[in-house]
Amino acid sequence: AEMVRAQHGTTLRCKTWEAEAALRMLENNLDPAVSLVYDELIVYGGAGRAARNWKEYQTIVRTLKNLEPDETMLVQSGKAVGVLRTWAHAPRVLIANSNLVPAWSTQEYFDELDRLGLMMYGQMTAGSWIYIATQGILQGTYETFAAVADKHFAGTLAGTVTVTAGLGGMSGAQPLAVTMNDGVCLVIEPIDERVKQKVREGYLDEQARDLPHALALCEQYKAARIGWSIGLTGNAATVLPELLAQGYKVDIVTDQTSAHDLLDYLPEGDIDAVLQLRKDDPVEFRRQALQSIMKHCQAIIDMQTAGAVALDYGNNLRGQAEKGGLKVRDEHGQFLYPGFVPGYIRPLFCEGKGPFRWAALSGDPADILRIDRALLETFPDNKMLARWIEKAQAKVPFIGLPARVCWLGYGEREKFGLVINDLVARGEVSAPIVIGRDHLDCGSVASPNRESEGMLDGSDAVADWPLLNALANCASGADWVSLHNGGGVGIGNSTHSGMVIVATGTPEKAERLRRVLTTDPGMGVFRHADAGYELARQVAEERGVKIPGWE
Amino acid sequence: AEMVRAQHGTTLRCKTWEAEAALRMLENNLDPAVSLVYDELIVYGGAGRAARNWKEYQTIVRTLKNLEPDETMLVQSGKAVGVLRTWAHAPRVLIANSNLVPAWSTQEYFDELDRLGLMMYGQMTAGSWIYIATQGILQGTYETFAAVADKHFAGTLAGTVTVTAGLGGMSGAQPLAVTMNDGVCLVIEPIDERVKQKVREGYLDEQARDLPHALALCEQYKAARIGWSIGLTGNAATVLPELLAQGYKVDIVTDQTSAHDLLDYLPEGDIDAVLQLRKDDPVEFRRQALQSIMKHCQAIIDMQTAGAVALDYGNNLRGQAEKGGLKVRDEHGQFLYPGFVPGYIRPLFCEGKGPFRWAALSGDPADILRIDRALLETFPDNKMLARWIEKAQAKVPFIGLPARVCWLGYGEREKFGLVINDLVARGEVSAPIVIGRDHLDCGSVASPNRESEGMLDGSDAVADWPLLNALANCASGADWVSLHNGGGVGIGNSTHSGMVIVATGTPEKAERLRRVLTTDPGMGVFRHADAGYELARQVAEERGVKIPGWE
Ligand SMILES: NC(=O)c1ccc[n+]([C@@H]2O[C@H](COP(=O)([O-])OP(=O)(O)OC[C@H]3O[C@@H](n4cnc5c(N)ncnc54)[C@H](O)[C@@H]3O)[C@@H](O)[C@H]2O)c1
Ligand SMILES: NC(=O)c1ccc[n+]([C@@H]2O[C@H](COP(=O)([O-])OP(=O)(O)OC[C@H]3O[C@@H](n4cnc5c(N)ncnc54)[C@H](O)[C@@H]3O)[C@@H](O)[C@H]2O)c1
Repeated sequence: AEMVRAQHGTTLRCKTWEAEAALRMLENNLDPAVSLVYDELIVYGGAGRAARNWKEYQTIVRTLKNLEPDETMLVQSGKAVGVLRTWAHAPRVLIANSNLVPAWSTQEYFDELDRLGLMMYGQMTAGSWIYIATQGILQGTYETFAAVADKHFAGTLAGTVTVTAGLGGMSGAQPLAVTMNDGVCLVIEPIDERVKQKVREGYLDEQARDLPHALALCEQYKAARIGWSIGLTGNAATVLPELLAQGYKVDIVTDQTSAHDLLDYLPEGDIDAVLQLRKDDPVEFRRQALQSIMKHCQAIIDMQTAGAVALDYGNNLRGQAEKGGLKVRDEHGQFLYPGFVPGYIRPLFCEGKGPFRWAALSGDPADILRIDRALLETFPDNKMLARWIEKAQAKVPFIGLPARVCWLGYGEREKFGLVINDLVARGEVSAPIVIGRDHLDCGSVASPNRESEGMLDGSDAVADWPLLNALANCASGADWVSLHNGGGVGIGNSTHSGMVIVATGTPEKAERLRRVLTTDPGMGVFRHADAGYELARQVAEERGVKIPGWE
Repeated sequence: AEMVRAQHGTTLRCKTWEAEAALRMLENNLDPAVSLVYDELIVYGGAGRAARNWKEYQTIVRTLKNLEPDETMLVQSGKAVGVLRTWAHAPRVLIANSNLVPAWSTQEYFDELDRLGLMMYGQMTAGSWIYIATQGILQGTYETFAAVADKHFAGTLAGTVTVTAGLGGMSGAQPLAVTMNDGVCLVIEPIDERVKQKVREGYLDEQARDLPHALALCEQYKAARIGWSIGLTGNAATVLPELLAQGYKVDIVTDQTSAHDLLDYLPEGDIDAVLQLRKDDPVEFRRQALQSIMKHCQAIIDMQTAGAVALDYGNNLRGQAEKGGLKVRDEHGQFLYPGFVPGYIRPLFCEGKGPFRWAALSGDPADILRIDRALLETFPDNKMLARWIEKAQAKVPFIGLPARVCWLGYGEREKFGLVINDLVARGEVSAPIVIGRDHLDCGSVASPNRESEGMLDGSDAVADWPLLNALANCASGADWVSLHNGGGVGIGNSTHSGMVIVATGTPEKAERLRRVLTTDPGMGVFRHADAGYELARQVAEERGVKIPGWE
């Protein structure tokens, strides 16, 4: 059978552009160039799926094709379970993935229901059809490393070495994000083919033969203050302790292995044997994975002690290591090394900023370049943004439907959404544009080990916010809305919501864009203002965000 | 200060009837005649609150009064946290109460955040402003006992004795539900004033002086086959074992004490000392409560062994006893005595039936009686319904805003919603009518120890459904929508959603009623059809419910 790939061009198979957009984005998530394990419908992030199985995928496709302009399809963990008559102005698709009643919301219980065919792990954007390949995380990673550079290295990573691990869907963005900040990056990845793939894709500059070769390259580019990334086939739990044993000086250490699920983190040992073990004896595999995670995490702590800047990159490595018995907190209960959000991203969240994105349904890269131009014209004074677009155009390959990610905040998103709608209306781009974001956004996620770690008022675990976010986007006029459990940090450890709206160029759509793209970042301002962040309160006051009790 | 009570009549304080309706229903929940502990804003079901505290109540009231016809207020655990510009056709209020990221969703962690002022327990209808006093549960309880009568006692409870416990908000419906089925009911309740109150309200026929008096009354009315209810001041954990010790023959045994929260179940002992202990030493109180629960639960099991029909009435008594170490399951992992849902209610859920209800914003009982008449005219062949309305008119006092609860199913709800809207339009009732339901409904709740216990396919704990329910109601045009955690069975043990729509009599509202009142029970048909219930599949086919993959 032919492999799935998003249809390009302006021919509709569905009755509305909105349903067609959902269909193309679903296809795009599965496109073998985009997805991690095509046969299993796995898009990224461990086992994040776009549909429950191929049969249910076909049913979703058929349902979307038949969906009337005033109908809404319901998706329960990757399966279309109902069609409702709603309204033309209502969402075409409503999605809930991987959600369990809290007391049953464990990885083990989920795995059991998954095996029974009753559930699916949706990760964040996989199950909600707004994954746009590694670029999706690239700007976030770029912004994080830029913040690290600002805070610790006088604004540039030139002359520094970053050590990290993982070259999968999201983690593969790391080397490019570091080199965009002019630093040297050493990435460890056990699956040799993944290292080679990232070189081919242009995300990674070079593969090292072995550790001595890797270190020689690091030293060479560090001395020359040239941005360069080196991939090393190996296991982080093995290589990091070796670096420590050799006394090798690391400036920044992090990792983005898929540690959130013990079945996805690869334990030390011969890679073929390890992959075979996962099939034959998952229980033993998990035990070994946890052992390796503890070793890996301890090495990060030791590098920090030796002077490196250490940060957790949102994969729950610390949380897993802690479950295994490792001491990962200080005497005040704070993690020994911070997560990237409280460390570097939260101030952006207070302004309603986050990984906003758009994709060209035409399939034509020219549409994205046209929008890039409009972006620079719309925000002429934003230097950071101009630098990002310049580097992205030069270094970021388009994979699947051409797309652009760009962190915009409260006010900016609405403004730019209308600009895009206008480009569609005027025919300056050749088809409607899908506008969405990651679930990792300012007001859409509760995840105490990641996005909501260490909130000022202690409200890290309050999950009312992402639920309100989904309801508010639904009420404001989004085209598809989703609610997920466990993205990024594993089943039970997060609650989060996604939203997508399609700029079709109509005046009616402009009104919906106006509301949705205000509501959505507005939730971030509400959430952080309520938690007591001064910056969020300022933003609310300056930009007229309505907070009850403030009158 | 004056106590809160719902405003009556047709004068609006808000800019729309929809916002006014939310305000009146909030006021109605708190009305001292309706609520359990006025000062603490506790409405029912343990500590189910309508707003986080009195200050936040005032902010909600002010916000509703100022709310524009195209604005939406966001409520996070009983606090108004934001106002968004949405649409006239969108919900006026979106509510998320008591939700925690699953791994943190324990009673202890919640209590801590509650103490910090960051959260509130919303129970089901308390925090979502559609509680209508004890009548709300009455028909459900009546239907359950009718089903018990059908299954075990040839269609009537005449000549049987039911023993139960609890005379609070919901539990207070039990004696009347039994006597409406012509049975004798003995209810045990430790707080003497609650027994007296239920006699005053007409829910309970008589208070017994002591146990011998109570049993004499039971025997007298049982022999005469007359429906009669007897309240006994005492503790179930003490009285039930006494009944067993005396060899007293009980026909049906259940209980509806608020066992879902260990701080609400009252342990054995002198009642004043027990209430003092709760203030002084909550840890010790909880320990003693658990001991009493285990004793209470064991007594129910022993009565079952002695021949009684035993059922759990949705308060998680079995779950708590199990946590304490009691054996409450057989060798197949099934509970020794069933919950009322799998035992008696699930077939109704398969037809989209559940505790549908309406309340008269005018405050005028004549409006409800007019609607009663329309109900009997609309469904002339439904005997069960006619019997319910006759008994309800005779025996159910109106408390707070006059209201009626009536279990209607898929198709019936839409039909009757339009009838009500028409009555409003024609001025046959004097003000708009609020239409809603309990969260305990066919498609709105995942609660493995209660509503979704023992699902055919093992999907008891899947929480995607209530989330989809909330999103779908939001998309269909409800006026307020809510998502809660922990209702009925305690924090972490359930996920559920509420919806309300106001029949204002406009043609536009008729269209929204048409959709919402189809969508909402439709979720119950989807959910049970997906789980494999033949009856739900039949209903779907006969009534044209669109299920993908069936074409
Ligand atoms: N910080 C963020 O913004 C963010 C966003 C999305 C995902 N994440 C998290 O980052 C993690 C990675 O996501 P992904 O999409 O790249 O997952 P992925 O599964 O696509 O890739 C992870 C990679 O790590 C490699 N790996 C596994 N064990 C390893 C080990 N011991 N040593 C070295 N490499 C190892 C795997 O082979 C794989 O290639 C996940 O936990 C995800 O939840 C973070
Ligand atoms: N089955 C359903 O449809 C349904 C619906 C709503 C609530 N509930 C559950 O039923 C329970 C009761 O709800 P409620 O609104 O009546 O709560 P409530 O707190 O208003 O009343 C419970 C009553 O039980 C009494 N009680 C406590 N300990 C007792 C003991 N040891 N012996 C005898 N009586 C005792 C209390 O004094 C109180 O009056 C809750 O757990 C609730 O979640 C069930």
